[in-house]
Amino acid sequence: MKKIVIACDSFKGSVSSIQVSKAVELAIKEVYPYCKVITLPVADGGEGTLEVLMQVKKGESVLVDVHDPLMRPLKAVYGISPDRETAFIEMAAASGLTLLTPAERNPCITTTYGTGEFIADALSRGCRNFIIGIGGSATNDAGTGMMQALGYRFFDRNGEIITTCNGEALSRIASIDAVGLLPGLKESHFTIASDVSNPFSGHQGAAYVFARQKGADEEMIKLLDEGMETYAGLVERLTGVDVECISGAGAAGGLGGCFAAFFCAELNSGIDIILNMLEFDKQISDADMIITGEGRIDGQTLLGKVPFGILERASGKGIPVVALCGSVEESELLENAGFLAVLPVAPGPISLEDAMDVNFTEEQIHRTVRQFLRLINYFSGKFNC
Amino acid sequence: MKKIVIACDSFKGSVSSIQVSKAVELAIKEVYPYCKVITLPVADGGEGTLEVLMQVKKGESVLVDVHDPLMRPLKAVYGISPDRETAFIEMAAASGLTLLTPAERNPCITTTYGTGEFIADALSRGCRNFIIGIGGSATNDAGTGMMQALGYRFFDRNGEIITTCNGEALSRIASIDAVGLLPGLKESHFTIASDVSNPFSGHQGAAYVFARQKGADEEMIKLLDEGMETYAGLVERLTGVDVECISGAGAAGGLGGCFAAFFCAELNSGIDIILNMLEFDKQISDADMIITGEGRIDGQTLLGKVPFGILERASGKGIPVVALCGSVEESELLENAGFLAVLPVAPGPISLEDAMDVNFTEEQIHRTVRQFLRLINYFSGKFNC
Repeated sequence: MKKIVIACDSFKGSVSSIQVSKAVELAIKEVYPYCKVITLPVADGGEGTLEVLMQVKKGESVLVDVHDPLMRPLKAVYGISPDRETAFIEMAAASGLTLLTPAERNPCITTTYGTGEFIADALSRGCRNFIIGIGGSATNDAGTGMMQALGYRFFDRNGEIITTCNGEALSRIASIDAVGLLPGLKESHFTIASDVSNPFSGHQGAAYVFARQKGADEEMIKLLDEGMETYAGLVERLTGVDVECISGAGAAGGLGGCFAAFFCAELNSGIDIILNMLEFDKQISDADMIITGEGRIDGQTLLGKVPFGILERASGKGIPVVALCGSVEESELLENAGFLAVLPVAPGPISLEDAMDVNFTEEQIHRTVRQFLRLINYFSGKFNC
Repeated sequence: MKKIVIACDSFKGSVSSIQVSKAVELAIKEVYPYCKVITLPVADGGEGTLEVLMQVKKGESVLVDVHDPLMRPLKAVYGISPDRETAFIEMAAASGLTLLTPAERNPCITTTYGTGEFIADALSRGCRNFIIGIGGSATNDAGTGMMQALGYRFFDRNGEIITTCNGEALSRIASIDAVGLLPGLKESHFTIASDVSNPFSGHQGAAYVFARQKGADEEMIKLLDEGMETYAGLVERLTGVDVECISGAGAAGGLGGCFAAFFCAELNSGIDIILNMLEFDKQISDADMIITGEGRIDGQTLLGKVPFGILERASGKGIPVVALCGSVEESELLENAGFLAVLPVAPGPISLEDAMDVNFTEEQIHRTVRQFLRLINYFSGKFNC
């Protein structure tokens, strides 16, 4: 074993990408002291994306006053590149689900306004290039809250201004104007990092697939989806863009579609954006193995999560990918997709609480990697591999 | 991979040795279709020992009326060899902890009487050779209950007969007579299969180490230990055997010492007895790997449990041992003892209830073995190993 690349996502709610990587590297060095280890921080547009972008691009943190999904004041961070041209934004930092208690979650009343405030602040500092991870949102407002923060105004059919744009207001929007747009906005370029490809509305759309985890019940989901469909018609009349035809328009409660229609943004796979930045294909050349990982690995992983993004790149080069995880399901499906092995790190029956403990999980990751490398080392050992 | 030997204990309370082995073999055949697989049923004197003995020796089951640890009537099974000379007995079948509810467990009042009834029945059928697994007992009566069933009588210092011999009666025993011994008993040969090497009394003895799991509190443990010490003095005066000096005399609440002092039995490691019967050393010759397993693997495993017995035999021949388990602790200690890898089969945070489910655990064992064999196969693959 001469070269191993570590490219792990965080285990959501437990260890960070960096903590996973350290535990893996320790085990590698114990079993293969002379192996070259390359650790790459990765993310897929969701939690941890800002951290990775900042690390890769050596960005500078900016702390700003924004509003959370319920319009309460919040101090939050985004990043600016050393040349001051590019802003790195994780929408979840201002508009994310983890900012709310379970009881507060309600996608009818949450707003992406805070994400707009990030952009406004960066515009005022001269940034004209934006890389925005849109995973983990608490919202289903089709980006209307964010647009308000950028100077757009929304009116109902009586011509009355809608002051609070959120999920339940979508069906009431009759017109939009852009007379108060912030300077620089129209000259800016947006790259959107998303980890889902759902359409804007309908049964695979934002409301039906994601609103439940954001706190909606059946009735709210139906209402939200109807709002999305109505609003999609208005967007097409105004911009000529049919968001219903754009893959990923349903990401972040329709924020994906908003960026595509109003900001000429391309919606990209978050993991691909990050892997391109890292020159991943170059980094893995001549690697004997790639170790990736994520908290939970199952069939959903194949829809654009970190381990699958890694697998797609590695497969082309014939490099085996081993995935670590907190829990696994549908192991055979994952094998068929190309993973050499998917290895859960639990030492036995444990509680979810233990599984979330950082020290405990670091130890289990270390143990798991040691065990499987010892096996490889033994059985390929006589060849000094 | 040309030859793999499977030699797994049961996962206590969940899958049997045979169920584990089948799941392992299925995975081997999927990854290495041409690999020779030898499956050996193993046990260490505890739960599952009778099943293994019967399978290896092609014994015949005998259903008899005995008494459980609380002297309630019980129908239970032991085995007889085809030549009718040897009886195979699992003491836990008549005197085991699993026969009692947690609330009923109390090593002050439980008795090995039922185990004596097994022996009595076999004697009456002409058996003069006994192989007895003594793991999993509910008792701490130093075998006095069993001796009663075989014709011994116990008296207190007033010469009154003690009708109920159990843990709390030990300190009252002043003399023993053997006038009513069952015919054939003194000409019989006893082989005792035990999985512990604890002494008769004291802080490493039967009461202090095992009585708690049998239902004793602090005070009862102290009382039991004092009884064991007093009784050991009497045994030495009567038989000339100092049970305090015999390794394993504390097994099964002192039943080990009883067999050693009164029946000239050798106390052997249960796993070694079984492995010798199976001609294990011959079976594993030219094996590329041995897969063993047990429900829980930790430092205690190194004190005589199945996986360690297997490891000791395999190490001498330089054959790697991989251990599967429901849960693992002290992984590094196990590596240092010589296991190539110890692999828990949990797919993530799961409840103890799920872990005990037979179908679920079979699936997890199958998945785990597939994953690690795929790794070995890939990395040793180019050498057609």
